[in-house]
Amino acid sequence: MTPTFSLAELAERIGGVLRGDGRAIVTGVADVGEAGSADITWITNPKYVEKLATSRAAAVLVPTDFGPTPMPAILCPRVDRSVAKLLAAFAPAIAKPETGIHPTAVVHHSARVAADASVGPRVVVEDGASIGPRSILRAGVYVGSQTIIGEDCLLWPGVVIRERCTVGNRVIIHPNAVIGSDGLGFYFDGGRHEKIPHIGGVIIGDDAEIGACVCIDRAKFGNTLVGQGSKIDNFVQIAHNVRLGEHCVLASHTGLAGSVRTGRYCVFGGRAGALDNVTIGDGARIAANSMTAKDVPAGQTVSGFPAQEHRKELRVQASLRRLPEVAAQLRELLARVERLEASKHDHP
Amino acid sequence: MTPTFSLAELAERIGGVLRGDGRAIVTGVADVGEAGSADITWITNPKYVEKLATSRAAAVLVPTDFGPTPMPAILCPRVDRSVAKLLAAFAPAIAKPETGIHPTAVVHHSARVAADASVGPRVVVEDGASIGPRSILRAGVYVGSQTIIGEDCLLWPGVVIRERCTVGNRVIIHPNAVIGSDGLGFYFDGGRHEKIPHIGGVIIGDDAEIGACVCIDRAKFGNTLVGQGSKIDNFVQIAHNVRLGEHCVLASHTGLAGSVRTGRYCVFGGRAGALDNVTIGDGARIAANSMTAKDVPAGQTVSGFPAQEHRKELRVQASLRRLPEVAAQLRELLARVERLEASKHDHP
Amino acid sequence: MTPTFSLAELAERIGGVLRGDGRAIVTGVADVGEAGSADITWITNPKYVEKLATSRAAAVLVPTDFGPTPMPAILCPRVDRSVAKLLAAFAPAIAKPETGIHPTAVVHHSARVAADASVGPRVVVEDGASIGPRSILRAGVYVGSQTIIGEDCLLWPGVVIRERCTVGNRVIIHPNAVIGSDGLGFYFDGGRHEKIPHIGGVIIGDDAEIGACVCIDRAKFGNTLVGQGSKIDNFVQIAHNVRLGEHCVLASHTGLAGSVRTGRYCVFGGRAGALDNVTIGDGARIAANSMTAKDVPAGQTVSGFPAQEHRKELRVQASLRRLPEVAAQLRELLARVERLEASKHDHP
Repeated sequence: MTPTFSLAELAERIGGVLRGDGRAIVTGVADVGEAGSADITWITNPKYVEKLATSRAAAVLVPTDFGPTPMPAILCPRVDRSVAKLLAAFAPAIAKPETGIHPTAVVHHSARVAADASVGPRVVVEDGASIGPRSILRAGVYVGSQTIIGEDCLLWPGVVIRERCTVGNRVIIHPNAVIGSDGLGFYFDGGRHEKIPHIGGVIIGDDAEIGACVCIDRAKFGNTLVGQGSKIDNFVQIAHNVRLGEHCVLASHTGLAGSVRTGRYCVFGGRAGALDNVTIGDGARIAANSMTAKDVPAGQTVSGFPAQEHRKELRVQASLRRLPEVAAQLRELLARVERLEASKHDHP
Repeated sequence: MTPTFSLAELAERIGGVLRGDGRAIVTGVADVGEAGSADITWITNPKYVEKLATSRAAAVLVPTDFGPTPMPAILCPRVDRSVAKLLAAFAPAIAKPETGIHPTAVVHHSARVAADASVGPRVVVEDGASIGPRSILRAGVYVGSQTIIGEDCLLWPGVVIRERCTVGNRVIIHPNAVIGSDGLGFYFDGGRHEKIPHIGGVIIGDDAEIGACVCIDRAKFGNTLVGQGSKIDNFVQIAHNVRLGEHCVLASHTGLAGSVRTGRYCVFGGRAGALDNVTIGDGARIAANSMTAKDVPAGQTVSGFPAQEHRKELRVQASLRRLPEVAAQLRELLARVERLEASKHDHP
Repeated sequence: MTPTFSLAELAERIGGVLRGDGRAIVTGVADVGEAGSADITWITNPKYVEKLATSRAAAVLVPTDFGPTPMPAILCPRVDRSVAKLLAAFAPAIAKPETGIHPTAVVHHSARVAADASVGPRVVVEDGASIGPRSILRAGVYVGSQTIIGEDCLLWPGVVIRERCTVGNRVIIHPNAVIGSDGLGFYFDGGRHEKIPHIGGVIIGDDAEIGACVCIDRAKFGNTLVGQGSKIDNFVQIAHNVRLGEHCVLASHTGLAGSVRTGRYCVFGGRAGALDNVTIGDGARIAANSMTAKDVPAGQTVSGFPAQEHRKELRVQASLRRLPEVAAQLRELLARVERLEASKHDHP
């Protein structure tokens, strides 16, 4: 069943103010260039306004102070928030998994599973583990010995959480992520790398979201920490004993080496990283494709490798592009100096 | 059973012309330096011809116009194509999985599975999903609600495909790849990152091949697209709403950020990437370890970060290597200018 | 049960010499700054000695020649080795999986499983595969047709090993790693990428350790090799026909492209890599975030991209940081030369 709303209903639902005829029927969401006559779209930047002229969209979400539009509009104080509500309104209904333990799941008799939790097919829950109220473990999830999963969590298929880890409440973990694997730790002895035991664990704070195929290694001792509200994209590596602060965002392929510490509200762009033992202050940003080898002060944006203050790096990048011409200028200057030197000798 | 062919049989089978005695028996394929007396090898570049002198190989595949060789040769108009046929000829027989649904699979009663499909042990197929004729789902694959798998697909163990995705025909997906996970999308409100629902899906075109541990995120709305015939290597990240064109090749660790669009026949080297919203033209190439922050015209090769035209980048790289000497030259020139200035004052 | 030791017991157990009262009771291991009064900590660098003054730790591990400490100390000839033993002493007991085949495992009748091996829930072992004595396959592991697993191996949940691979003895493979997937190999024909069969396998040497979500592709022919004692971190890509030497260490996100060969004792930092066909000598080191495009001699450390000798790269990096000022100096010098030229014309 496709969700269907009148424009007036939608405006109310997403927290905006209707401008124009509220009776139009909307059945979907689409890009401005691809919207059909029953779709709603959005635009935030006035420079794209001309795209509206040729759009077939039934209506458009715009910021509150946006100028006239060729179709009905919903004026929104925060377009991003309203778009999120819009997408929620049109989300297809997905059957919720049944509560209880699927007959193909293997749950140890000493594990505790809340009565209203949902443990899906092929899930394995080891001895002493605990699954909190309303948490959903999709097919094939593995929960190790003595690991604790909080309330209202959602673990997608193939997630592996090893022993003695703790996952907070309302945590989402995407498919095939691995929590609590041993870190890379060896000492060199007799020509061989000998394993350093990793006897610590991992603690993931409330409301964190962990992407697909993410690896968060357990600590050598103590715990690797993911702060509450932090959002981690696919393929991110969190090494042993990292302490990631609260409400950080780490884009895909980012890597935090051993014992990195970050403050709150840090942002790592795609394929960003930090070498081991680096400390990163509150609100610092590591740009995409950049890796810091030293501490980053709070609030600073760094880029490049080794990363430096972003404005400095931009200047270096700009100079770099002109480098071949610098070499040419240098050659020319040398020739001119040589001529000057020669002429000096002409005038003794 | 080791496959065994006479050289004459092989020449015919791989589309080449025999030169020399066709009765030699070949039982394997090996590198020129490691081939035994019953192995066949190949060589494409005349500069490696001296390696043949010491090779024990029974025969060698060479291009049609290749000079004399110390052992029988098969002359091939396209060596790469003939090598592929050669490897196919020597591929060990692997028992084909039985058709039907393995007793340990969990298939929802509303899912449709073609009679000649093969659903392996521990596979889970959710409600409303569909598995096409002759498709093979190896052990532990997960197919979400209403997801459609086409004909003749091969899904290796641990593949997770979430709800409402579409996989075309003859698609190969390697182990532990994740299709249709939520993209990284949040809006910031009240000091927290609030989740943006991802109500779209993923569509994978015919003949695509998806590597192990690849992540292809579902769209916020509409669909993330992988064009037909595109080949994606391990650990590649395809973010939400990306539109990857047809017949592209993406090497390992490549990342395409949100809403990147590419044309047909694009190539990404290892650990290449594109920042969000970038558009890449037909046949463009992003070199290994390079990331583009802006659109790339059709046919252009770019490298570096931020990526620029490859020839420009090469010039910058060359200048960069000489940079310490540029600084030295500059110091020397300064000294000479100072001497000139001083001598000028000597001649008032 | 928390492990409890007297300091004297611990000193003996970890191979150190007690200095101070050996009766103190130790129940845990912690960082110097966070240790409680029953914790033991360690310090290796004298520059951190002042941290000991405020530490509540019951005792500290230090190198043999370390100066006075405010709490009892254990003097260790090799602190790293003693720390490993210390962590082993405090490792929480984890119930060992039962030997035998779990009733939910699917083991082909032609597979051989040693009587004292442990095959966990949901494991699949295909035809002709072999699991050696005392090896442990955790939940959901997949072992393909004719694949051989040696003695005393530990395979964590979600590991996928495809057909005809060989894993040595005492190998540890972390969750969701993929061994033996097809490499990225195609030839271009008629506007399409046609698949090159990968008929080879993978051989992993004794005592290797393979991280979570690692991908080791099978060879086109012959075998991709991982040398004995090599340690591979999460998300590392080992492409087809790579030959990784013995006792190498590869940190997270490293990528070795097709047919790369390395010697023994090579080290790859985080997100390092080598382009295809590169040969790397014994003991060479590829620094973090660096990728080599050419061969690296034995013992050499390289960095940057394309990687060059590390000291050269450091000089380039240093020059690079001064690049904006070089441009300014060049402009200034040009002005001075112009003044000189002008003054020359003043003195005909």
